[in-house]
Amino acid sequence: MTATAEQPPRIGIIGTGAIGGFYGVMLARAGFDVHFLLRSEFCAVAERGLQLHSAPFGALTLNPVQAYSRAEDMPPCDWLLVGAKTTSNSELAPAIIQAAAAGAKVLLLQNGLDVEDGLRELLPDSLHLLGGLCFICVHRAGPGIIEHQALGAVHVGYHSGPVMADAPARQQIVEQGAGLFRTAGLDSQAMANLQQARWQKLVWNVPYNGLSVLLGASTSPLMADQHSRELIQALMAEVVQGALACGHSMPPGYAEHLFKVTEKMPDYWPSMYHDFLQQRPLELAAIYARPLASARAAGCPMPKIEALYQALCFIDGRNR
Amino acid sequence: MTATAEQPPRIGIIGTGAIGGFYGVMLARAGFDVHFLLRSEFCAVAERGLQLHSAPFGALTLNPVQAYSRAEDMPPCDWLLVGAKTTSNSELAPAIIQAAAAGAKVLLLQNGLDVEDGLRELLPDSLHLLGGLCFICVHRAGPGIIEHQALGAVHVGYHSGPVMADAPARQQIVEQGAGLFRTAGLDSQAMANLQQARWQKLVWNVPYNGLSVLLGASTSPLMADQHSRELIQALMAEVVQGALACGHSMPPGYAEHLFKVTEKMPDYWPSMYHDFLQQRPLELAAIYARPLASARAAGCPMPKIEALYQALCFIDGRNR
Repeated sequence: MTATAEQPPRIGIIGTGAIGGFYGVMLARAGFDVHFLLRSEFCAVAERGLQLHSAPFGALTLNPVQAYSRAEDMPPCDWLLVGAKTTSNSELAPAIIQAAAAGAKVLLLQNGLDVEDGLRELLPDSLHLLGGLCFICVHRAGPGIIEHQALGAVHVGYHSGPVMADAPARQQIVEQGAGLFRTAGLDSQAMANLQQARWQKLVWNVPYNGLSVLLGASTSPLMADQHSRELIQALMAEVVQGALACGHSMPPGYAEHLFKVTEKMPDYWPSMYHDFLQQRPLELAAIYARPLASARAAGCPMPKIEALYQALCFIDGRNR
Repeated sequence: MTATAEQPPRIGIIGTGAIGGFYGVMLARAGFDVHFLLRSEFCAVAERGLQLHSAPFGALTLNPVQAYSRAEDMPPCDWLLVGAKTTSNSELAPAIIQAAAAGAKVLLLQNGLDVEDGLRELLPDSLHLLGGLCFICVHRAGPGIIEHQALGAVHVGYHSGPVMADAPARQQIVEQGAGLFRTAGLDSQAMANLQQARWQKLVWNVPYNGLSVLLGASTSPLMADQHSRELIQALMAEVVQGALACGHSMPPGYAEHLFKVTEKMPDYWPSMYHDFLQQRPLELAAIYARPLASARAAGCPMPKIEALYQALCFIDGRNR
């Protein structure tokens, strides 16, 4: 099941929303021993299980679920998948530490830049920290109910860990992480450079997440109007320029590729719109402020992204 | 009443909305012979007159009103003040021609760039065409009811007219126009360069008109939030750069001045927000597209304004 002949790793899901729920159910379905930490939806999931309505995979119900309302009750997990919002990362540190086996791998399934940094300071050095970029159309439709519309790939990269972990050891861990998803039938790539992978994912998140909130529009209408198409392309171009200025590379034609992928996607409301609707804090630091600061420090202003960010800050402030 | 000892000019108001209604009532109150062309509000105004609720000037009712539903019924007017939206300028040409006395002066009380150009082609050369920039907080509160919150100054500049009109003659006409408003107790400046005056007014309209629609916010909340303040300042700075690139000058500290004026204004919903609410076409060509094109042609991109414009085009398209 993994690259080595060892016992298959035990997996903990920290934050069982759309992302944590989807990947947790898919991994459990593949035979992994998966444990779910929940807060507000604990009772619903403990009673009725997790229901995944997946366009590509059909209806999947995981019931009973190994569900927990307290990390103290979880068994030690080898891999911890964090699907919570970046805005709550530091609050999650105690639960992560509690649920982690010795030398565990913590994988943040989150968008945005430098989302690991705040959490890293709060974790013991013995834990490996990784980032995962999810290319997926999924949202939470109700307590314990996950609606999966399309895609599902995860790009995994290494952030930090024990000083004794050399580059080959780190890459092996990344490969192991990608292997979990592949075993679950999902596309997954091991990325040599996490920061670069995060910048690449921003090419999608910067335009679509923000514009969904700013314009109250899902992907289909945004892709149907000439002016929003041009704005999306301009925002994507700024992300690419920012990434290059920060020393990262982009696959040739990557922005055009993501633009075309989005045209073929089912109509989709990005996660930031769901956050907005539910009056949760928007992930503006991870997706906008930090990329803007990094690019600016590298001498690359991203003016349209900055305007979008400033407008979103205003909206976010009013929304809570 | 005017600079010369001639008969005071007869004034026609083409488009009696908030702007046309306000200036028409103020001019009538000052003793001018003012004639109002109306469409949808003709009956209401013919029956009940025009009511101006003015914070600085108090409640003023003009009743009866010399109101007309057809330009053919109007007497020949020496000055025609056009308060309609820029989006309907070419439709108004027949009414303007109909109501114009020989050698009449047509004054467009409108924001934005090059708003005279489309109309100019439709007017006979014998008519003088001028532009007026209104620094005023006013809106239409109902049929024939105008709410005036603050300010009221008009900057007047010359656009075009008979070839025999030399620079001094043109400037005299501009001074005569400014004199009308001054006689009505309003501040008014004769501007040597209309294009420059239009660029200066854009320093206010570009941020506040657009952001009121984009963020659903009036001036007070926009001025209370740090991020929207920074966005406003950045948009203003781009207008100033665009104006300079196009060869115009700006009074020193002009953007800062307008920013401070807005802080002291009563809470205000710009006209574009009212257009949006009433599902009228937004004045995006005059206030955004033409300044963007002019600045771009002068080698000056205005990226934040362009992003705002693209977002507004999407909103405008959805709104109708």
